[in-house]
Amino acid sequence: MSGAPFRIAVLASGAGSNLQAILDTLHEGPEGVVVAAVASDKPDARALERAQAVGLPTASFPLADHPDRAARDAALADWVAGHDVRLVVLAGYMALLTPAFLQRFPQAIVNVHPALLPAFPGLDAVGQALAHGVKVFGVTVHFVDEGVDTGPIILQRALELPHARTREDVLGELHAVEHELLPAAIRLIARGAVTLDPADPRRVRLEP
Amino acid sequence: MSGAPFRIAVLASGAGSNLQAILDTLHEGPEGVVVAAVASDKPDARALERAQAVGLPTASFPLADHPDRAARDAALADWVAGHDVRLVVLAGYMALLTPAFLQRFPQAIVNVHPALLPAFPGLDAVGQALAHGVKVFGVTVHFVDEGVDTGPIILQRALELPHARTREDVLGELHAVEHELLPAAIRLIARGAVTLDPADPRRVRLEP
Repeated sequence: MSGAPFRIAVLASGAGSNLQAILDTLHEGPEGVVVAAVASDKPDARALERAQAVGLPTASFPLADHPDRAARDAALADWVAGHDVRLVVLAGYMALLTPAFLQRFPQAIVNVHPALLPAFPGLDAVGQALAHGVKVFGVTVHFVDEGVDTGPIILQRALELPHARTREDVLGELHAVEHELLPAAIRLIARGAVTLDPADPRRVRLEP
Repeated sequence: MSGAPFRIAVLASGAGSNLQAILDTLHEGPEGVVVAAVASDKPDARALERAQAVGLPTASFPLADHPDRAARDAALADWVAGHDVRLVVLAGYMALLTPAFLQRFPQAIVNVHPALLPAFPGLDAVGQALAHGVKVFGVTVHFVDEGVDTGPIILQRALELPHARTREDVLGELHAVEHELLPAAIRLIARGAVTLDPADPRRVRLEP
């Protein structure tokens, strides 16, 4: 790498397997990406343990500790910004971020979603896809805007599973795709290869 | 093959490249699929010429020749049924079929659509997908129901084109996928490998 490290924060609500993939494949690697802070809305998220295990600063911001979502997100934004990060990565972060949070990190928040957006936004994307009877599943990494999984798409990868019938048939393989695609997107952003098309801000340009 | 030929009708409105793919890869081949009739809503559809070139019966049913859509579709259904077909294949057929037509061929009409449904149904699917900024395009073959591209999905195939910016960037490769996927679906149906899940009629079961 050349230049300063590309510091990122990771927000997660659950097991933290996407965080682990980032730690295993990107953190302090040759691309200069450093996970500088990990936060959660759930104090007992396993993701926090994974971060602590490698000595990273962590914090949790449960809604119950704050007057409302805006106050919670303001505290979260202050804590994240205090770690001097250039990108906020939602890796299984299940709380919706308030507009004020989004404005603190313009075009610098990304999310990973287990469907080929715009199909199946929101909760239980795999369940939605199975109920619809699709034969191709997939993963999307996108910038976060004020909608639910509606922001500009950075990377997508498809997974053809024509015989899948249950979530279990899909989730294992889909998680493996997430664990590649999210670090790949962060890597591209860190080296400046991801820009919004000025002529069309929905379209994300990737340097080949 | 064993048994009687599996006779199909193809409806097309345009150039007929999907019809040509069926003629080239399936018609009178070892799977026993026979294109028995080709019809169009457009008398000048190039698809009709392609069919005539190999000696197939053709007919056109322009709306202007009939009192209304219901009457047009009744005439079309009579003509198609008169060729004793077991499957009606929409291969770039741009007119919506009336419910009465659908009821004449229950669970025996399939369509090919240039997107990964349920994303981007209807007209100009590729333009819609480009405007949304997706990185994965694709093709769906589905049973036709009364909605617009909403019927149970038989086969889907994805096409990752992360740098695509224009329809031209997408359409050539997508057409090549259509030309494989539509014959593949017809082949599966002809050998009885496609059934609706009795527990969930949205889910199409494919014999491996």
